Amino acid sequence: MVVSEAERNEKLFQQRGFHRRMGYGQSPALVVIDMQKGFTDPQATLGSNLDAQIGATQPLLEVAHERKIPVFFSACVYDDPEFRDAGVWINKIQGLNTLGSWTENAKIDDRLDVRRGDTVFPKRYASCFFGTDLFSRLTAQRIDTLIITGCTTSGCVRATAVDSCQYGFRPIVVREAVGDRSKAAHEQSLFDLDAKYADVTSLSDILAYMRSVGHNAKA
Amino acid sequence: MVVSEAERNEKLFQQRGFHRRMGYGQSPALVVIDMQKGFTDPQATLGSNLDAQIGATQPLLEVAHERKIPVFFSACVYDDPEFRDAGVWINKIQGLNTLGSWTENAKIDDRLDVRRGDTVFPKRYASCFFGTDLFSRLTAQRIDTLIITGCTTSGCVRATAVDSCQYGFRPIVVREAVGDRSKAAHEQSLFDLDAKYADVTSLSDILAYMRSVGHNAKA
Amino acid sequence: MVVSEAERNEKLFQQRGFHRRMGYGQSPALVVIDMQKGFTDPQATLGSNLDAQIGATQPLLEVAHERKIPVFFSACVYDDPEFRDAGVWINKIQGLNTLGSWTENAKIDDRLDVRRGDTVFPKRYASCFFGTDLFSRLTAQRIDTLIITGCTTSGCVRATAVDSCQYGFRPIVVREAVGDRSKAAHEQSLFDLDAKYADVTSLSDILAYMRSVGHNAKA
Amino acid sequence: MVVSEAERNEKLFQQRGFHRRMGYGQSPALVVIDMQKGFTDPQATLGSNLDAQIGATQPLLEVAHERKIPVFFSACVYDDPEFRDAGVWINKIQGLNTLGSWTENAKIDDRLDVRRGDTVFPKRYASCFFGTDLFSRLTAQRIDTLIITGCTTSGCVRATAVDSCQYGFRPIVVREAVGDRSKAAHEQSLFDLDAKYADVTSLSDILAYMRSVGHNAKA
Repeated sequence: MVVSEAERNEKLFQQRGFHRRMGYGQSPALVVIDMQKGFTDPQATLGSNLDAQIGATQPLLEVAHERKIPVFFSACVYDDPEFRDAGVWINKIQGLNTLGSWTENAKIDDRLDVRRGDTVFPKRYASCFFGTDLFSRLTAQRIDTLIITGCTTSGCVRATAVDSCQYGFRPIVVREAVGDRSKAAHEQSLFDLDAKYADVTSLSDILAYMRSVGHNAKA
Repeated sequence: MVVSEAERNEKLFQQRGFHRRMGYGQSPALVVIDMQKGFTDPQATLGSNLDAQIGATQPLLEVAHERKIPVFFSACVYDDPEFRDAGVWINKIQGLNTLGSWTENAKIDDRLDVRRGDTVFPKRYASCFFGTDLFSRLTAQRIDTLIITGCTTSGCVRATAVDSCQYGFRPIVVREAVGDRSKAAHEQSLFDLDAKYADVTSLSDILAYMRSVGHNAKA
Repeated sequence: MVVSEAERNEKLFQQRGFHRRMGYGQSPALVVIDMQKGFTDPQATLGSNLDAQIGATQPLLEVAHERKIPVFFSACVYDDPEFRDAGVWINKIQGLNTLGSWTENAKIDDRLDVRRGDTVFPKRYASCFFGTDLFSRLTAQRIDTLIITGCTTSGCVRATAVDSCQYGFRPIVVREAVGDRSKAAHEQSLFDLDAKYADVTSLSDILAYMRSVGHNAKA
Repeated sequence: MVVSEAERNEKLFQQRGFHRRMGYGQSPALVVIDMQKGFTDPQATLGSNLDAQIGATQPLLEVAHERKIPVFFSACVYDDPEFRDAGVWINKIQGLNTLGSWTENAKIDDRLDVRRGDTVFPKRYASCFFGTDLFSRLTAQRIDTLIITGCTTSGCVRATAVDSCQYGFRPIVVREAVGDRSKAAHEQSLFDLDAKYADVTSLSDILAYMRSVGHNAKA
């Protein structure tokens, strides 16, 4: 029987006490990270094909809206025509200069159902928590679990999941609903996240959880 | 000629405006992340063999001390006997319970020269910036560049480099001085970091830079 | 009938929509700010007589311990013999150099009952949230209300109350259990806090609330 | 000779090592806090007469623009029609519901010269640092000094000055350019700030400093 290096790694990590379950909390929110045209349009400088991820996000939005689970859409955008609000980051990723808040790239992909009551918020950096008031919004609503979708897996998704763990909100990454322009980066980030920071979980499992969350149902 | 997937990825990323140089600033600090016995002792639950990384960190410390470049050692430790100060993170990594501040695992590896004037600070989470006053210390000393060493590449090193970029301090990762218990995770994190958040640079290049930094030399 | 300026101010503020009730949440924690010898010993450089405040804090601790309400003691202390960890703040308050973590001034006042299970944590700056992981500890335990005691009213108490409001934890300041070296600063800060950031409430009211909190009682 | 309580307090504080000079740094930025119509229009729910403060801010803007000193205008605004982005704060200050980002109250007062190149940024809470990327903007430009103007002295000005001190940027409050709806709160906050967190300094002194700052002049 052949055992791949990935399987050996997972076994070793499990023996050392990684890969435990974070577990679902009682009160989740859904965050959809940077599913704006600048990332979902394959023609855009920073874009790639995320059609499958959009398809997986749609039922999550539907259930969240139905169950009154709070929904947050982030968009990575800059207001400064000279992009000084990208700080030192633009030294590294020149393509951030395609994300002006006045451009089509700043808009959430039309295939996602943004409803009145959902929150769309700008961010400048990788983590949805950095330089934003996401923390306060979650705390004020007593959220304890963050269901994470969007792009890119090795970028803003990973940084947000790590921060979610640090701030004390259980991060649950929806395997089918996160994507990356590099397959290798995507796969390795899912491994690292599940080993160390977040539960990487299937869409169907998460939908079942969201449907079971009672206290948000006010209908 | 065979082109590997990694090479194809790097080319694609460069075409899209990634992998630019962050560049050195004028005033660096050196951070040595979690090089405590709980990580550097291969027998420890969370440990692995980091002898080569320690060997690469030694000359960095020597030059930093010589040039009066501020040095920060982090240690990931917990004070609470029930590890409630590990928050939700301990759900994921059971092995955090080997990092009690009262244990041998909390101590910086003896092979590293911690001098009077260096800072050793505790942290609870992945990023050296999270839940600490590292940014205040850097700002008050007008540091603009963070030279990053330690472990693990896909864990605390990566999270610290991402935060350094977010907070506005140029992150420079010393290739030879960072390590991980998984080779695959190590390599992919170096790729991701260099593409998106930090300059992953050779020890010799960084030593030359540190020696050239004039304004910290007060001797 | 004579109406004082203070009464006129309060009336005006109420008309403009200030001074509403923050209200108690479902799950409180108690924070005792900087009741260390460096502040509670009137002979200490930064000290003043806080006997009455200690007397008011004692029953709060008793009820918190009884009802399993989490208790946090902060201490403002510095590890660096040259006090560089006081950042630019020491430019302003020279007396911070009496708060070395190795001194008697760093110890919590003996009259306060610190029990196993309580948290004692160091901080460097005014707010208990700044440069600490207090928010992660509160979030991971799903705390939504912070009962605030300690010193000084116009300093660390006020800064912590403002941050508590900002982070999304309802701040409740115990009128009898906060003190300041200046009576004028104390009174004005209580007015400002109650108008804008926190409920300034009587000890008896808060004790009754703490006794009513059911879900923490695990006895 | 009669000595007022205020004078006695100041003397006592000085003896105890307060009221030292923070001192100017090498590279300042100017922040104009919440000088939006919702605060500068005396008819607005949260407004008061700030004509004198606007008069004092005008020459600061003029010199900042001339000397290429970065200028930041904050505006306290909410995007959510139900003001959930005001978190628990709206429990306390009902009038926050007059600060919708779609209203005239959100606009910077016309008497202030906002130029292309200046930054106007939204905030939700008291401190300009809270839930914003101000820190990153200052760090990336190597700012070390924050010249603070705006309103209200006991509210957002004070919270921003305290955070500026905490984050490691020297706060300098322009006495003539900060205002409050309560004279008592204004005076006491200036005392507290100068004693403990910031230099409260005259307009003329600060203008002279700004004119002397060489390295920002790129003309």
